[in-house]
Amino acid sequence: MAGRAAPAELVARFTLSATAGARSLLTLNDFHTWWEGRSREGRFAVDRLAIADLEGWRIRDDTHDLVHESGRFFSIEGLRYRSDSGGEHVQPIINQPEVGILGILVKEFDGVLHCLMQAKMEPGNVNTLQLSPTVQATRSNFTRVHRGKTPTYLEYFHGPRRGRVLVDVLQSEQGVWFWQKFNRNMVVEVTEDVPLHEDYCWLTLEQVHGLLKVENLMNMDARTVLSCVPVDRPAGVAAADSFTAALLRSYDPALPAVHQQSEILSWFSERKAQCDWHARRVPLAEIEGWKWGSHELSGGDEAAFRIVGVRVKAVTREVTSWTQPLLEPTGHGLAAFVAKPIDGVLHLLVQARHEPGLKNIVEMAPTVQLPRVAGSGPAPFADLVRSAPAHRRRFDTLLSEEGGRFLNGLTRYQVIEVGEEFPERVPPEFCWMTVQQVMRLLEHSHYLNIEARTLLACVHSLW
Amino acid sequence: MAGRAAPAELVARFTLSATAGARSLLTLNDFHTWWEGRSREGRFAVDRLAIADLEGWRIRDDTHDLVHESGRFFSIEGLRYRSDSGGEHVQPIINQPEVGILGILVKEFDGVLHCLMQAKMEPGNVNTLQLSPTVQATRSNFTRVHRGKTPTYLEYFHGPRRGRVLVDVLQSEQGVWFWQKFNRNMVVEVTEDVPLHEDYCWLTLEQVHGLLKVENLMNMDARTVLSCVPVDRPAGVAAADSFTAALLRSYDPALPAVHQQSEILSWFSERKAQCDWHARRVPLAEIEGWKWGSHELSGGDEAAFRIVGVRVKAVTREVTSWTQPLLEPTGHGLAAFVAKPIDGVLHLLVQARHEPGLKNIVEMAPTVQLPRVAGSGPAPFADLVRSAPAHRRRFDTLLSEEGGRFLNGLTRYQVIEVGEEFPERVPPEFCWMTVQQVMRLLEHSHYLNIEARTLLACVHSLW
Repeated sequence: MAGRAAPAELVARFTLSATAGARSLLTLNDFHTWWEGRSREGRFAVDRLAIADLEGWRIRDDTHDLVHESGRFFSIEGLRYRSDSGGEHVQPIINQPEVGILGILVKEFDGVLHCLMQAKMEPGNVNTLQLSPTVQATRSNFTRVHRGKTPTYLEYFHGPRRGRVLVDVLQSEQGVWFWQKFNRNMVVEVTEDVPLHEDYCWLTLEQVHGLLKVENLMNMDARTVLSCVPVDRPAGVAAADSFTAALLRSYDPALPAVHQQSEILSWFSERKAQCDWHARRVPLAEIEGWKWGSHELSGGDEAAFRIVGVRVKAVTREVTSWTQPLLEPTGHGLAAFVAKPIDGVLHLLVQARHEPGLKNIVEMAPTVQLPRVAGSGPAPFADLVRSAPAHRRRFDTLLSEEGGRFLNGLTRYQVIEVGEEFPERVPPEFCWMTVQQVMRLLEHSHYLNIEARTLLACVHSLW
Repeated sequence: MAGRAAPAELVARFTLSATAGARSLLTLNDFHTWWEGRSREGRFAVDRLAIADLEGWRIRDDTHDLVHESGRFFSIEGLRYRSDSGGEHVQPIINQPEVGILGILVKEFDGVLHCLMQAKMEPGNVNTLQLSPTVQATRSNFTRVHRGKTPTYLEYFHGPRRGRVLVDVLQSEQGVWFWQKFNRNMVVEVTEDVPLHEDYCWLTLEQVHGLLKVENLMNMDARTVLSCVPVDRPAGVAAADSFTAALLRSYDPALPAVHQQSEILSWFSERKAQCDWHARRVPLAEIEGWKWGSHELSGGDEAAFRIVGVRVKAVTREVTSWTQPLLEPTGHGLAAFVAKPIDGVLHLLVQARHEPGLKNIVEMAPTVQLPRVAGSGPAPFADLVRSAPAHRRRFDTLLSEEGGRFLNGLTRYQVIEVGEEFPERVPPEFCWMTVQQVMRLLEHSHYLNIEARTLLACVHSLW
């Protein structure tokens, strides 16, 4: 596709995998059989714990921050920010100042790229086990001496045995929960034989996209890597209806879009330049309205989340146990793209959204993303999304945020079809983009937030 | 050009202006006559001043930061950072948390785009008057009630009368002097008549590029905007020698480069992911080794700069006067690209450089950039650049950094030709790129630092 850094030949191979049909190594039945086996094989018992009983963690006397005694992992600190309206806001924030690797290994079987996906348990997952990328590695996994063992397959992503890098871009994570967190999203190809561990299986992109429709199955780390995989307009896919036909045309850079790519970049420059939010980390002791109880850091009834402690007992072949803090949202999130065919080409309505923990504060987000960020204006299209009838909800699935940091962090992801009745003219913080225009931005950091990236991956499941 | 967001038709028009020859509105003689007139018309008297005598500025009792009583403009604060080696470093830093506009207005005369350039005096300029973009506006110029008058021509860049936006991207500024400073680099086209103020003149891109070779003439703000203007391989330009022939081929995306664009992005992701520098603002009172004297903030003999106060008397038609702090570097900087023809295509050797004030710490920089940043490793190619014979110094001009913030901030900009003797294999913090590959990155923020951008603009003067 014109305009991409990714070579056209590579995008064609991804597209083939996304339309592979029966050319997959496993059938979906095989997958589900394997998945049920994995589910039986192990489980986590997760129990609430007093903060004082977190092993290796302590609340600092001076700052009241929750830190690990090693100085590593992450810490719970305070965030103070001023929004455009001039209001001052405070909240706790997770500070994990390191870039990890989220990596999917791919390999051709019978000429079709397959993704090595992992069945991985995380303590915060509502259902413990979710489908995950090949590797989720923190920096300490690959840069320093570390007590734990090296993650399986990490050698394909780092160091002398690394495979051919197909996708490699730093992307942000939740800007209301994390302080300026980035992970490195990678797809690496190997041609050699790869020993298959029992917790892993090879799936085509089409199968992976399809599994995005299953509630709480595909984890956040898998979704963000998938969103960075470029695909072309698929050939030979029959559109079931006019919406799907418009969607397929939305992958075609030759078809007319409301805005040129350069206009999209200019719109985003303007949104960033006009942003007058300022955020900085402060000691937790300085943030008003939040206090440590015996079992949680709480900001009262209105707060969107709390910090809790848990003991995790992993009952697998060996029994292991550890304790850690988790961020527990107090309700489900909502992330929805409004999607409108314009001149026969589907356009997504992208929002320039303020999140105080993002490095540039502003990134591109779904049309509606809830809960609202304190200090931001009203969410113009929230009522429309909430009241959309079932046949307009083209995608509608509850998915989990990262279970290693968030306890039962669930977001409802939706793609809402709108028609002629929805105006093409939108408020200045919104911009219409085709699917291929959004994909182009994902070769770079600092454009799409993690909820928008999840939704882009979900859009690929609608062919 | 494939891979750009900018429409091909637009790039062709910029390229025409960069090869306009005699199709310019003014001859270079006309320009110099106008310039001499402007130089006679006004001057600045800049005198050192005791810090206590800066009007409207004060050193805060608690933090020792130097701030303006309005809370606006900028402040001098402290910066503390840890480098990869684990060393802790401190220094003062300018904090100006707002995005201004650096804008060049362009208009076609006789079918050729011309840039509206400004003769502008700045107190820190070694020669007071330099050639500047049409507009240098701070945020307070266009968002709030402000005592001063609105900058001339600002209405073409902001608000309802804005022209057609051709270039619009936020770019970083000096990461050793500024805390996470960005300005919005814009080129805007108008077709209507533009009243010509006496401090302005219309020049083709070719004329502007040529004037980059004049010592301390083209100011930093003009250079960064020019670097973001995409141009194609010029047709019909005869190469004077094999270096120039290789340079012209370096604008052609169809010719072979050492790396694909996707490999360049991956290399940069790796450099950012491996960076373990952490920087934060702290009160000046907390940084060891620096103290306020009566006339300066000084870090001792080894420090790379000091903060001083000046009184500026502008002797123009009206006499105006003000006082302000400036950052005064203690020596000249050096910024040099090593340039090597590889398979007949010129490649620039780009460095992933750490600067503690940059938002991502790491940006792409010239091969050699001095002074070194405290905490960074040795500069591998510094000796080679310093000892390059005259005929290998394809570009070699002393240019000024922003005269509104820096007092006599001078950097020697060089493009150093190397041949077969220079190895193609380079250390991991370096990457070979063609000119067109570097230009593509400039559609986005967070890639090239300001010294690399100046040099890219200078490369365009070598056709």
